[in-house]
Parts: sequence; structure tokens; C-alpha cells
Amino acid sequence: MTKELKLAKKLKLKKYRDEFKLFVAEGLRLCEMAVESEIEFGFYTADFLKDERAQNLISKIKSPLYEIPAATFEKISDTKTPQGIMLIVRQKIWTLEEILKQKLIVALDAVHDAGNLGTILRTAEAFSCGVVILEESADIFNLKVVRSSMGAIFFLPVVKMTREEFLAAMKKFDVEILAAALDSTAEIYYKHELTKKSAIVFGSEAAGVSQEILDAAKKIYIPMTGRAESLNVATAAAIIISEFIKSH
Amino acid sequence: MTKELKLAKKLKLKKYRDEFKLFVAEGLRLCEMAVESEIEFGFYTADFLKDERAQNLISKIKSPLYEIPAATFEKISDTKTPQGIMLIVRQKIWTLEEILKQKLIVALDAVHDAGNLGTILRTAEAFSCGVVILEESADIFNLKVVRSSMGAIFFLPVVKMTREEFLAAMKKFDVEILAAALDSTAEIYYKHELTKKSAIVFGSEAAGVSQEILDAAKKIYIPMTGRAESLNVATAAAIIISEFIKSH
Repeated sequence: MTKELKLAKKLKLKKYRDEFKLFVAEGLRLCEMAVESEIEFGFYTADFLKDERAQNLISKIKSPLYEIPAATFEKISDTKTPQGIMLIVRQKIWTLEEILKQKLIVALDAVHDAGNLGTILRTAEAFSCGVVILEESADIFNLKVVRSSMGAIFFLPVVKMTREEFLAAMKKFDVEILAAALDSTAEIYYKHELTKKSAIVFGSEAAGVSQEILDAAKKIYIPMTGRAESLNVATAAAIIISEFIKSH
Repeated sequence: MTKELKLAKKLKLKKYRDEFKLFVAEGLRLCEMAVESEIEFGFYTADFLKDERAQNLISKIKSPLYEIPAATFEKISDTKTPQGIMLIVRQKIWTLEEILKQKLIVALDAVHDAGNLGTILRTAEAFSCGVVILEESADIFNLKVVRSSMGAIFFLPVVKMTREEFLAAMKKFDVEILAAALDSTAEIYYKHELTKKSAIVFGSEAAGVSQEILDAAKKIYIPMTGRAESLNVATAAAIIISEFIKSH
């Protein structure tokens, strides 16, 4: 089991998540959502097992699970007050075709903040979107992203692409590219009518959507009446995604 | 200046923010947004002053500002990599009348998470809403709330009330109370027509809106098609607020 413990620790780093194509889910609720995914192995503490819901979860998992001392668990855990359950889950590989089958495509262009990224994944999954992660975004298998996705990561069709690959793919499959912009010359988001399969791109809060994407996109914006210069990127994504899904 | 340094440190605690009716703004961008507020005093480092935008900010502030060593600044700062500017700002007192004048009232019922609360304040300000903070919510002058509000806290009409006071006030001023609920028997949010002044209540992610409020409210919900059981509360707030403002 030393090998498994070492691997669990390593998976805190993107380098190893990329190498092994695995990631970590921690906590009762998140691990409950992971049961349909490909679980490699996991750890729990004796204390965790005292709870009935916990026992129920453990009974559903056929992969190797190791009971370890609370002190050992704390060492591999990423949380301040660990619940005593951790699963090592295989990263699911989605195809572009699966992304294109979804109601709407959401592309994230250099969204660095893990909390924002996880929240957007959660929103995208709730509204049956497919997601494309472009360069310079946070790693979707980062522990904080997984946590703030609230399990969406287990179900959400998501692929990584370069901007160039994304632009080529959208062109090939005749997908209209929209970009959320802080630009009042852009079209107001709710006035834009979706007439065909569309991809909406959100950029970093600091720099917005990259020029490369903007050049190929139709810009839309959210009109604001207060003193705020901008909205949180996960907020902007929620507003635009829900509007487009609603009119679908 | 020892007195001012001590006070700045104390203001990390809600107890002292409540007692002195002051709060802390840190960082260039946030402090730029604070200039129209009542500033008591502030601190900066010599390094901060090297920047032209920083000098411009400092020149606009008429309240006492103290240059302090970087090591001292680090001790009073709440951030890992301080920018070297901190202002101590008086909490603005808003009246219920000012809240009622806004397009829409947003009430927060036990929203504990500081990041979510700040993000909702930012969204509310961007759409010209007034905000009512009910019991058990995080403190709006908490450093993390101020930071994630991105300066909205300086402009946003916001009052604190008990649930009882809120219900009585809404009744008195004939305001319709809506509550965001995870309940598919509720009305779909975009089908609800605002026919008079309305207040929309959002609850904690774990427990939702309290029964006391639900009993007096019309429930609305956001339909989801994915596997997610719920949305992030700041996401739900963004979706519903933007929809109601749009149809205004």
C-alpha cells in the first residue's frame, strides 16, 4: 500500500496527474458522485466508517480500498479537516464528437482561478453543456477545481485543445463562435439569437478573451448599470449560459 | 501612529469592525474604488509609491496616510503578497428607503461563504440592486468579502436585518417576496413575471432559504438538465437577478 499512498500524494501535482491520467476526489459527497467513474483505489479511516452513509458508499466500490490511520490520512489529504475518504479516479477521455452533441459548447480561454473554473464546470454540467479548455487555464483535475465543481467533473464532457485546434474544429463542424467581451459595442447577450450550434468563449478576468479567438468570434456583452467594471467570470458564464439554454 | 496600526490589526475581527464601524480595503484597485468613501486613515510602503498610478491614488486622499516599512505592512496585511496600500474606511449606513429605491431587492439568508457573499454583492451592484443581509450570513465587511466584492461594497446599498424585521418591512412596503428553492414544484424563474417591487431571497447552499422566509414567499427555481443537484449560490443569484433585471 506504500505505493498507493505515494501515488495519492504525487497526484497533488499536475505533472503526475498528467502522467498517470488520474486525479483525487476527497470527502463523502464528492466520493459518492465518483462511484460511476473508474476508481483505481482509495483510502478511508476507521472513523469515517462509523457513519451509515459512509458504509453504504464503501459497499458500492469494488476497487481496492485501504483503511489507514487518521494521521496517515491527514498527510495525503488536501483539506484542513479531512472527512476520511479519498478515491483515486481515472480521468475520463471525451471526444470532440461528444462535446459537439451537447446543447451548447463553453470554451474557457486562460481561466486561471481554480474556484472560478470549478464553478463554471458545475454550471456547464447543470445545463448540459460541453466544455473546451483552452491554453493557460487552470488544470480541471486540480484538487480545488474538482472540489468547487461539486462532482460535475465526473459527468461533464470536457476536452483540452489549443486555440488553433479549437478554431479549426469549430470551423470544420460549422459551429458559431461567440465571445463574452467587456465591450459595449458588442451585441447584448440576450439579443443574440442562436441559429446554429454555438460555442461561447469566456476569458480571464484580467485580460478577457484572447485576440486570436476574438478575431474569429462574434462579441456579446452583459449590460451593467452599477459602478462595477466587470462581473466575476463564473457569474458572467452563468448569466450567458442560462440565457442561451433557456432559448434553446 | 501605533494606535492606528493596532486598530488596523483589530479590524481583522468582526467584533472590532462592529464596534468601530470601520473596515479595511487593501490593494491598489480596491483602494482606488474607495476614494469616494469616508476614509479614516491609511498606510502605504515606499515601494508602493514608486508606481505612477499609486502616486495618483495617494494624491487624491486627504485623510492621514502613513508611510510604514514593508515588514510592518506585512504584519497588518491580510494578503500573502501585499501591494503596500491599505485604507481604513468608515462603514456607510444605508436606510431601508434607499434599498427600496433600487430596481430589485436581493436578500441573503445565512450565506456563510465569504467568497460567495462577495461575489453576490458584486453582481447585485452591477445590476443596481439593493441588498438585505439576514441573520447568519457572513459579515459583509470581512476582508475576503470586501475583496471578492471587487469594490462593490463601496457603492452598494445594503442593510442588515433580522428575518422578522425583513418580513415586516416587505409587508409594510408591499414588496413581493420570492425565494430561490431547489424545488421543481416551484415556478420556473423565467416564467415569473415581476408585477411589483420584489425581493428575491437566496439561502445557504446546504440548507437553502429558511422555513420562516419560505412561508411568506413565492418559490421559484432554476431548471437543470445535468446530474448536478444544485448550483453554486452565487451562480443561482446571477442567473435570477440578471433575468429579473432584463425583464424590468
